[in-house]
Amino acid sequence: MTATALAFDLGGTDLRAAIVTQAGEVRQALTVPTLAREGVDAVLDQMTSLAKTLMAGTDGTIAGVGLGAPGPLDPLAGIMVAPPTLSGWHDVAVVKRLSARLGLPVFLDNDANVAALGEWRHGAGRGFETVLFVTVSTGIGGGVVSNGRIFHGRRGLAVEIGHMTISGFGPTCLCGNVGCFEALASGTALGHRGADAALRPGGEKIAAAQSAIGRPGARAVVEAARVDDPVALALIAKEAEWLGIGLTNLLHIFSPDIVVFGGGLSNAFDLLIGGIRSVVATRAMSAYRDVVIVRAGLGTNAGLVGAAGLVFTPSSSATREDRHQT
Amino acid sequence: MTATALAFDLGGTDLRAAIVTQAGEVRQALTVPTLAREGVDAVLDQMTSLAKTLMAGTDGTIAGVGLGAPGPLDPLAGIMVAPPTLSGWHDVAVVKRLSARLGLPVFLDNDANVAALGEWRHGAGRGFETVLFVTVSTGIGGGVVSNGRIFHGRRGLAVEIGHMTISGFGPTCLCGNVGCFEALASGTALGHRGADAALRPGGEKIAAAQSAIGRPGARAVVEAARVDDPVALALIAKEAEWLGIGLTNLLHIFSPDIVVFGGGLSNAFDLLIGGIRSVVATRAMSAYRDVVIVRAGLGTNAGLVGAAGLVFTPSSSATREDRHQT
Repeated sequence: MTATALAFDLGGTDLRAAIVTQAGEVRQALTVPTLAREGVDAVLDQMTSLAKTLMAGTDGTIAGVGLGAPGPLDPLAGIMVAPPTLSGWHDVAVVKRLSARLGLPVFLDNDANVAALGEWRHGAGRGFETVLFVTVSTGIGGGVVSNGRIFHGRRGLAVEIGHMTISGFGPTCLCGNVGCFEALASGTALGHRGADAALRPGGEKIAAAQSAIGRPGARAVVEAARVDDPVALALIAKEAEWLGIGLTNLLHIFSPDIVVFGGGLSNAFDLLIGGIRSVVATRAMSAYRDVVIVRAGLGTNAGLVGAAGLVFTPSSSATREDRHQT
Repeated sequence: MTATALAFDLGGTDLRAAIVTQAGEVRQALTVPTLAREGVDAVLDQMTSLAKTLMAGTDGTIAGVGLGAPGPLDPLAGIMVAPPTLSGWHDVAVVKRLSARLGLPVFLDNDANVAALGEWRHGAGRGFETVLFVTVSTGIGGGVVSNGRIFHGRRGLAVEIGHMTISGFGPTCLCGNVGCFEALASGTALGHRGADAALRPGGEKIAAAQSAIGRPGARAVVEAARVDDPVALALIAKEAEWLGIGLTNLLHIFSPDIVVFGGGLSNAFDLLIGGIRSVVATRAMSAYRDVVIVRAGLGTNAGLVGAAGLVFTPSSSATREDRHQT
């Protein structure tokens, strides 16, 4: 019989759940809009209900429950601290509460770490010893899997790469500093530069893309670049430069065997990778220049596959109980 | 009988060797000037000779040989690649050659990783799960020990923190980039700023310290600061700011339980720590602000104690043989 896990990908918009096999196969995925404004119990009720539906439809044993959730959270203590997209979730012992409801061991980690684990187990990072997963969307996040373990650091707070200072100038970040990787290189940052360009002469193609999409954002810049708009291409080149500077730092810091590039902006990976590689070739020390940089392989399933991975690679996880046994 | 290891701390100036107990006690340390310009065999002869002297004086069994050496080197393959301070050392399979000479297993790692391991086992980082060791001297290096293992990354090249870009301006680094942590915050950088200040009005105290020492450098700035020279104190404050910016990045990236500050500039730790903490308190996200930052505890013995640690914590080491067994 195939070993399976129950996997949850909890976001501020959608709550996804599935049975996932040890081989990374996603079965019976269900998605519901997260009751994000209705507090902890409402969401735990949703999860319990999804679990019952999924478990009723499976004939095998469920080895455990994996939960990928928005940070900040403490995977070591099994506590979600204060996710900005979920109202009322302050210091919630979600591992304990969900485990009591489902009668199964629960493993928690933040969404970027879970996606990193998923890409290492079954995606673009498979077979590599040290995998750096970087997700570039609204913000920039990351996760490192090394020797089969998520690199957690104190309170599971490691690889908060979005707030790495890479410049002495630039827009002020939400964190209050200037020069954060995220403030310069996130999809949001690219979208802002696109919105500015759309107001200036030459920005007509970007402006048209914004109108067609219904709002400004990175996607409008990417779509204009895909029809060879020179202004959009210049913005993409600048975006690749900032990404390259940040990634070069991370190459020196983690020396990954592979960089897996995910998040919304990975849809423009083909447009960005040339510029990123050029910056790495210029800025990285020679021993780091040939590191493989690829687009994430699991797409929207990374969260589910990775959450199941928390169950199947227990040493990768770090619930307090588990750590004390090792 | 106490388990002991034979430890080498190989530098471009000095070669140190000692018997080190499993408890981290350094016995019979010997130091000779490294025959750095005379090639590989000359240095291996020195090591063999020191080993024989030390082993003749010990009554117990030597569990193995630990070697801390200048990078770049590949601890996984046991190869020293091209240390700039040792002539003729290009792609030397030092683990294999030294093991053949001494008839003992040999464990190799770079000096910053070895010092990190030493501080974790027996120094300021003892008892902490994730230790970030930062050494600030001529350059800036680092090592991370997490869950009892040195964080190596591909080819053992991780934690090359000196070439992390933290600014868009500043002096050009030896690596060719602008804005490297090392180019802005190393002892060398502080010494250059001191030498500039010494030539300007108000720089008399620093100039006097340079004359007394015999050359410009960070030490002259530190000595002038110790007698409350305002120009030197301003340079120390700027140095602390750069160190704080770089350390804040590393707090977000590694989330260490403790930062252990070593290297030559750790002699000025008391002068720097206030400014460093102030920058961390301003720039780090709140969850990272209370991380302990302390001065290294082992001083010049960190290399020897850490090299022995490679023998006594085999999972921390990463020679190819060892890794393939795990």
